[in-house]
Amino acid sequence: MFILINLKAYPCDPLEIANAARDVANDSGVRIAVSPQAADIARVSDTGVETWAQHVSANNYGSYTGSTLAEAVANAGATGTLINHSERRLTLADIDTAVNAASRVDLDTCVCANNPAQIGAVTALSPDSVAVEPPALIGGDASVATADPDIVSNAVESTNSIDKTVDVYCGAGISAGDDVIAARDLGASGILLASGVAKADNPRKALEDLVVPI
Amino acid sequence: MFILINLKAYPCDPLEIANAARDVANDSGVRIAVSPQAADIARVSDTGVETWAQHVSANNYGSYTGSTLAEAVANAGATGTLINHSERRLTLADIDTAVNAASRVDLDTCVCANNPAQIGAVTALSPDSVAVEPPALIGGDASVATADPDIVSNAVESTNSIDKTVDVYCGAGISAGDDVIAARDLGASGILLASGVAKADNPRKALEDLVVPI
Amino acid sequence: MFILINLKAYPCDPLEIANAARDVANDSGVRIAVSPQAADIARVSDTGVETWAQHVSANNYGSYTGSTLAEAVANAGATGTLINHSERRLTLADIDTAVNAASRVDLDTCVCANNPAQIGAVTALSPDSVAVEPPALIGGDASVATADPDIVSNAVESTNSIDKTVDVYCGAGISAGDDVIAARDLGASGILLASGVAKADNPRKALEDLVVPI
Amino acid sequence: MFILINLKAYPCDPLEIANAARDVANDSGVRIAVSPQAADIARVSDTGVETWAQHVSANNYGSYTGSTLAEAVANAGATGTLINHSERRLTLADIDTAVNAASRVDLDTCVCANNPAQIGAVTALSPDSVAVEPPALIGGDASVATADPDIVSNAVESTNSIDKTVDVYCGAGISAGDDVIAARDLGASGILLASGVAKADNPRKALEDLVVPI
Repeated sequence: MFILINLKAYPCDPLEIANAARDVANDSGVRIAVSPQAADIARVSDTGVETWAQHVSANNYGSYTGSTLAEAVANAGATGTLINHSERRLTLADIDTAVNAASRVDLDTCVCANNPAQIGAVTALSPDSVAVEPPALIGGDASVATADPDIVSNAVESTNSIDKTVDVYCGAGISAGDDVIAARDLGASGILLASGVAKADNPRKALEDLVVPI
Repeated sequence: MFILINLKAYPCDPLEIANAARDVANDSGVRIAVSPQAADIARVSDTGVETWAQHVSANNYGSYTGSTLAEAVANAGATGTLINHSERRLTLADIDTAVNAASRVDLDTCVCANNPAQIGAVTALSPDSVAVEPPALIGGDASVATADPDIVSNAVESTNSIDKTVDVYCGAGISAGDDVIAARDLGASGILLASGVAKADNPRKALEDLVVPI
Repeated sequence: MFILINLKAYPCDPLEIANAARDVANDSGVRIAVSPQAADIARVSDTGVETWAQHVSANNYGSYTGSTLAEAVANAGATGTLINHSERRLTLADIDTAVNAASRVDLDTCVCANNPAQIGAVTALSPDSVAVEPPALIGGDASVATADPDIVSNAVESTNSIDKTVDVYCGAGISAGDDVIAARDLGASGILLASGVAKADNPRKALEDLVVPI
Repeated sequence: MFILINLKAYPCDPLEIANAARDVANDSGVRIAVSPQAADIARVSDTGVETWAQHVSANNYGSYTGSTLAEAVANAGATGTLINHSERRLTLADIDTAVNAASRVDLDTCVCANNPAQIGAVTALSPDSVAVEPPALIGGDASVATADPDIVSNAVESTNSIDKTVDVYCGAGISAGDDVIAARDLGASGILLASGVAKADNPRKALEDLVVPI
């Protein structure tokens, strides 16, 4: 299982979480990455933790003030990127181009989408992985395992029918180790997690609790 | 073959083109529709021609000032709609929701996209049809049959691999009857056409020339 | 006082409200307009009521599929338009261009904004009027007169400091005749109203109640 | 005069330009800042050059994946930010909120706009400075001093009529030292420059040539 901690624009200490994620990954053998804002990528990456961007723009080099060039986040140390997170929706054409932009610099790509139909759609764009974010679960306390398990298994089925090489992550409804196991049992090979770690009083303990059952 | 005339925001007379399209459709037996701006749908539909919206919004009834509700265009007489035209790109989530909105009121849906990968993606959202718009051909004089034929046949293949019930239209590079035949031979079952008719000195003659070889 | 009824995408009967607004305007001498969706402008205008668009696009004639050309809504019978409603925010550049587009065809323009600073900003673009929409009041039941009166008087002051010829409307927090009087006393020369009429069981009675104190 | 070098997403070496800008600023006494992408702010700032962000988002701390939080760019070392550059247009509401976001962390703000009317509009939002970007000059070789001088003096007049404390920069049409002097003579107190330095074979020499006449 792959665990990706999305720091969003939370008022957390990115380095505290990066150090904790690196240590827990090393101790447990579980793959854990941290996704900070673009301006924080360099110092998060310097901790040695696997670092992902939260977004890359669809453009190449050029006159694109205020964009997030794939090359720039890769130079800063990112090795993967989210694309089309529910808080940063893109046009379909831009998702396609952003996946290609990320591939130019070998960033792992995870494209987010709402439901099994959209998961099928983004799978057709050949990212490395997709993440299903049931809208009802985003930012809430409900567990995907109990509240909406079918959406994960249907997303896995949708992806497999189009491109079996694309991994499916569970993008919401995860807050404890049991949820990770439930997601895995539904066919997910990774999870996206945000406030459960980024807003925890003790992020290291939150991560340790998360990996125990894996 | 289905011929859809997109009037865009061209300085044309929508009624002249609507009347011509109705007559040429009746005379030739070829299915022809006209897609005017939302404000013109009612009077275009009143001519008896098959009428399509250029866009519908992803929303349902509610507090959505300035949106284009599927119910409103259907009430005005539209029986189909373009979605995600290259001049009106939507987020993937909104394409999905707009297809569902159009389906609520039985509008035929045609979702546009740039290339075979994106055509596969929008096919996964289960519209009635998709239209491939090679960016290099949009608004130009080049014919899809000679300039970029693979993009059409690859789009057809991409769609068929995901959902054989979805029709594929050729969304650019069509200006004469020969282009229609070329598109059909490449697997398209319809074409989108804009300036070739909407900006013609004699729209009726342009339409007649178009349907001769069909 | 000018009363503009924004029908949004509400599940109302536009003609019922249009007829009621026309009759109440005629009976009371109060200026009342109705703002339906673009697809409904023609039939609303046919009732004889003053008709406004909910939005016009920043473009001129051309390749703009899915846009709402000022010329098209004017041809359909609109004589005014909202621009930048809180549910249809535009870039500053597009607000400027849309105001100019509307002026091309002599549409009255009312640009909406959130607070006195933004009201000053849009006043600088020389529309005919501006409407202040306190975010806290949009769609709610609170009255601007009691909940947030300063925002209206401050907006009036902001506009007057930049261009005294621009009218200021009160864009939220109005549901009864007393609110209209309160808005007038705060310096507004018009009001925007939506659900209070559009969702009323008896729109005619809601309008009659509204104009009584004027 | 203030000189702001916008690196956009150009394929330049941000550190080479940062070092050159720092040295030329020190040697000449002219204030020079460099504006890299968000992911490059930390290492550009580490050179000691004045560093600006190209954009900040309108949001505060919270669930805003892929945003560019003002606090994050300030922590990375930025002391100023562009807002609403012509390549990153924002809604009016977001310009207002982004100016406030930047002010939370004492970032200098420069809001860009197309023409004197829009310059007046953004002045009303009380940024520290505004930059007028005549669309015809963006990315071209024409000099604002000869091609479009009135747009700068009219922008200065527009700003002064609303808030004399707001500085006006010239946002396009500058490539040589003479253009800087011309902009100053038209009332600008700063300039925005991009390819003239960022794409120069010798950025240091380009900067030296620029500051000579100042």
